Amino acid sequence: MIIIIQCRDRVGLVSGISGALAQAGINIISMDEYVDKTENRFFVRVEAEAPASRLLDESQLRPILPDDAIITINPLPEKKIVVLVTKEYHCLADILVRNYFKTLGATVSAVIGNHDVLQDICKRFDIPFHYISHEQLSKPEFEEAVGDVIDTYQPDFVVLAKFMRILSPTFVARFIRRIINIHHSFLPAFIGANPYRQAHERGVKLIGATAHYVTNDLDEGPIIAQQTIPVHHGFTAQDMMKAGREIETAVLAKALRLVLHDRVFVYKNRTVIFE
Amino acid sequence: MIIIIQCRDRVGLVSGISGALAQAGINIISMDEYVDKTENRFFVRVEAEAPASRLLDESQLRPILPDDAIITINPLPEKKIVVLVTKEYHCLADILVRNYFKTLGATVSAVIGNHDVLQDICKRFDIPFHYISHEQLSKPEFEEAVGDVIDTYQPDFVVLAKFMRILSPTFVARFIRRIINIHHSFLPAFIGANPYRQAHERGVKLIGATAHYVTNDLDEGPIIAQQTIPVHHGFTAQDMMKAGREIETAVLAKALRLVLHDRVFVYKNRTVIFE
Amino acid sequence: MIIIIQCRDRVGLVSGISGALAQAGINIISMDEYVDKTENRFFVRVEAEAPASRLLDESQLRPILPDDAIITINPLPEKKIVVLVTKEYHCLADILVRNYFKTLGATVSAVIGNHDVLQDICKRFDIPFHYISHEQLSKPEFEEAVGDVIDTYQPDFVVLAKFMRILSPTFVARFIRRIINIHHSFLPAFIGANPYRQAHERGVKLIGATAHYVTNDLDEGPIIAQQTIPVHHGFTAQDMMKAGREIETAVLAKALRLVLHDRVFVYKNRTVIFE
Amino acid sequence: MIIIIQCRDRVGLVSGISGALAQAGINIISMDEYVDKTENRFFVRVEAEAPASRLLDESQLRPILPDDAIITINPLPEKKIVVLVTKEYHCLADILVRNYFKTLGATVSAVIGNHDVLQDICKRFDIPFHYISHEQLSKPEFEEAVGDVIDTYQPDFVVLAKFMRILSPTFVARFIRRIINIHHSFLPAFIGANPYRQAHERGVKLIGATAHYVTNDLDEGPIIAQQTIPVHHGFTAQDMMKAGREIETAVLAKALRLVLHDRVFVYKNRTVIFE
Repeated sequence: MIIIIQCRDRVGLVSGISGALAQAGINIISMDEYVDKTENRFFVRVEAEAPASRLLDESQLRPILPDDAIITINPLPEKKIVVLVTKEYHCLADILVRNYFKTLGATVSAVIGNHDVLQDICKRFDIPFHYISHEQLSKPEFEEAVGDVIDTYQPDFVVLAKFMRILSPTFVARFIRRIINIHHSFLPAFIGANPYRQAHERGVKLIGATAHYVTNDLDEGPIIAQQTIPVHHGFTAQDMMKAGREIETAVLAKALRLVLHDRVFVYKNRTVIFE
Repeated sequence: MIIIIQCRDRVGLVSGISGALAQAGINIISMDEYVDKTENRFFVRVEAEAPASRLLDESQLRPILPDDAIITINPLPEKKIVVLVTKEYHCLADILVRNYFKTLGATVSAVIGNHDVLQDICKRFDIPFHYISHEQLSKPEFEEAVGDVIDTYQPDFVVLAKFMRILSPTFVARFIRRIINIHHSFLPAFIGANPYRQAHERGVKLIGATAHYVTNDLDEGPIIAQQTIPVHHGFTAQDMMKAGREIETAVLAKALRLVLHDRVFVYKNRTVIFE
Repeated sequence: MIIIIQCRDRVGLVSGISGALAQAGINIISMDEYVDKTENRFFVRVEAEAPASRLLDESQLRPILPDDAIITINPLPEKKIVVLVTKEYHCLADILVRNYFKTLGATVSAVIGNHDVLQDICKRFDIPFHYISHEQLSKPEFEEAVGDVIDTYQPDFVVLAKFMRILSPTFVARFIRRIINIHHSFLPAFIGANPYRQAHERGVKLIGATAHYVTNDLDEGPIIAQQTIPVHHGFTAQDMMKAGREIETAVLAKALRLVLHDRVFVYKNRTVIFE
Repeated sequence: MIIIIQCRDRVGLVSGISGALAQAGINIISMDEYVDKTENRFFVRVEAEAPASRLLDESQLRPILPDDAIITINPLPEKKIVVLVTKEYHCLADILVRNYFKTLGATVSAVIGNHDVLQDICKRFDIPFHYISHEQLSKPEFEEAVGDVIDTYQPDFVVLAKFMRILSPTFVARFIRRIINIHHSFLPAFIGANPYRQAHERGVKLIGATAHYVTNDLDEGPIIAQQTIPVHHGFTAQDMMKAGREIETAVLAKALRLVLHDRVFVYKNRTVIFE
């Protein structure tokens, strides 16, 4: 049993929650708790064991919590995702493999590509692939078409696995807090297009990758995971891109693992993560 | 206010503890909790705020805890350490600098060396240095002399900062669970003497350092912190030793920070660490 | 054009080789050179550009080199590998994906499994899968059967991608210096079976993975690549295994990239690697 | 013997240089070579052994090199540095310790502080400390005073070890390519003041440090070394600052090691580094 709560902080919350659980005969296995003192915000994630006969109802927690509390009990164990891609295969292939071997923590419902080069790999894994070219469509038309396909699957999350089109606020609003992107730089360095070329020009000694929620501001959403690896003067922008693929894959996989196992809270432009 | 408890696990411990604190008017700022299911062992570390008038007494917690509970309330904020060295300076100098700038989390009471090459640096920082050569003494005599000097300072911990003499079980027993060592390898690889020569001969691509509590079995005590760095075929054993110094310094500093801020539990041959 | 030479060291080798290339009208793009002073051994790897009309022949280099020189000019650009597996999918799937997208630097000729659970993923990528159970066969019979299938493909390398059977010296001799293994620990720590259980029992704070050539001594062959990641007290042996999969995959991929791009020299029990 | 050359690239440079050395009876121990193809620029660093009777003169190399060649033979083995500080001790103390134990690769001639809090630690190591407050002086006056003190020591490099004043182009020009700074972020992220506060506000999951040459553009000079470490939601800006000190110290130490051992070429806004 997993219980997730986010609310205004006040004295006695841990005591209240653990007391309510004890009273309900539910045994706490682990409890992660964090208070953002600046924002006066309380976050808790509880893993617990309940005898088969014991259920926990939101109504048992509501009275002891501030009225702004967001309570989630037993979040959906197996979520659904739709993946958006362009031409690069590495993040998608990693997701398809984990999906196939049931270690993703979600089911891939479908893949949408604005190019068709990744159609075959999806077919090999029996995953529906929708090819929606952006070329004959206006941006609003393209996004509407993509959004409509997504909606037919009712996914919990939309994953941008090296999807190289910038999304409008309208599209983002349609799937608010449900879009996760992998950006090929250590944000906030090298926002926008061609981060590896920017990195090469700046002569950095590390390159990075960042997985984040997508908000209206380009590459400015809440960060979930980041990683860097060393590079040296001998790396061309092309070499950086190749090396970067390995951490893009790893960082997106980590971010999905965290999000899909209900370990990420979003608050303001930040994430609280209980690993 | 810091409260540290280790005991047998049972249902309701978090609830009981947080309830007792709430009743005492003490507000939990953060609570780290861990249950070792195999060993059925419960560990908790609480940081809390109490109004000036409110005190917490062990007797308020004892009734709600199993009878084997080890309870520590407000551990000594400023501990004392004695450092044992041989000839290498890097770990000692780092400790002396942090001590001087009051960021060590402890006071260095004295340094004992079986060589005198590090006497001058201690003098520059006004730290007593005791030179006890092992050359004219039997091992028991040497250890007794060292132990007696240590005892005059009544330190909380004895830190082996590249002390190159192997300590007997008698000595270890005298300062049981109070001796911390930095070993220049990624334990359990390369136990014993000359780990860098061993690492070089094996042709490893990473070298490491390990900080651990000292027990009777050489290099076998509970591990507190470890780190590795890359090396390549061009590194001689000497080059590895030089590069290794940087992580030896960093790993011992990290281990001391954790231990001196009461973040490390020892149980069986293992540590539970709340960072 | 790639030129690789390993020989006894002596004065003037770089000058001799670069002079011979200049005389042949061949332009050096990059030159990696290393001398093992203890072993008095010289290693060089040259990337060069030759006009279409200019060829380089071993006979142009032979006269200027010691008589023990091993010279390789333009090693096979696209090698063939056979992969041996048991039940774990992660390393194999990574290899199959890279093979499919032509970024492996080799062609996967076939996969051999002593269990059949990975048959389907191979089929999806149109890679022949040979199921050879070890259960009805003696060890020599099993190894002969595996070796015979390997031989039908004449691979350049045999990759043990989490193949959980220990190979006899006879088998290793049959494919000497052509077998690459991924071991799920930071060798030489935790040699042999169940390294994650060993690591958990020892209470380490890092776990590792090691890719190495296989020799007669179990887990003792020349190391190609190693990596570690942090773990903490909360990790069960099972959790370590899960986390370890990510670095096993990454380390084997890195080792294969190096070996398949002719960047690894083996000498005695060590590797010289020009990245 | 160390030979360092930077020039326009052309065919036959390695052959020409190694030939000239062979002819002079000088044996190459190691040779690091790099060609920037975009800029058509050649960089080489040779470590060699010469019999006592053999000397190498620039005139033996000049004829075989392009006319823009910058040749350095046997750069000064022991350089002099002046260190500029404000209030933070960690980088300075690390430099003073290495200087004292003769492992810095340079001699610290003096320390200049715009506050006096680090005077005592310098005194303990017998290093001259010049206190030049910026408070009663205009910026040009302050910089002139600092520059004049620096000049009395004729240092090879000026090291900004957490010096918190922004330097004018006039000052930078006075010590062009001789000023090395440690910036407390992963540049180019968080340029300018308060990078840890910026990092905290952005909610990053890694913080970094960057050592670089100082040019006229704030935090835009050629990067020498960078490193990152993980942080999480629980880190305040203050916690990030504390954790960051460890990598600031390590990164500046690494950069100084590289620069002081003549392993860094600067070309345009970039460094070529032979580690």
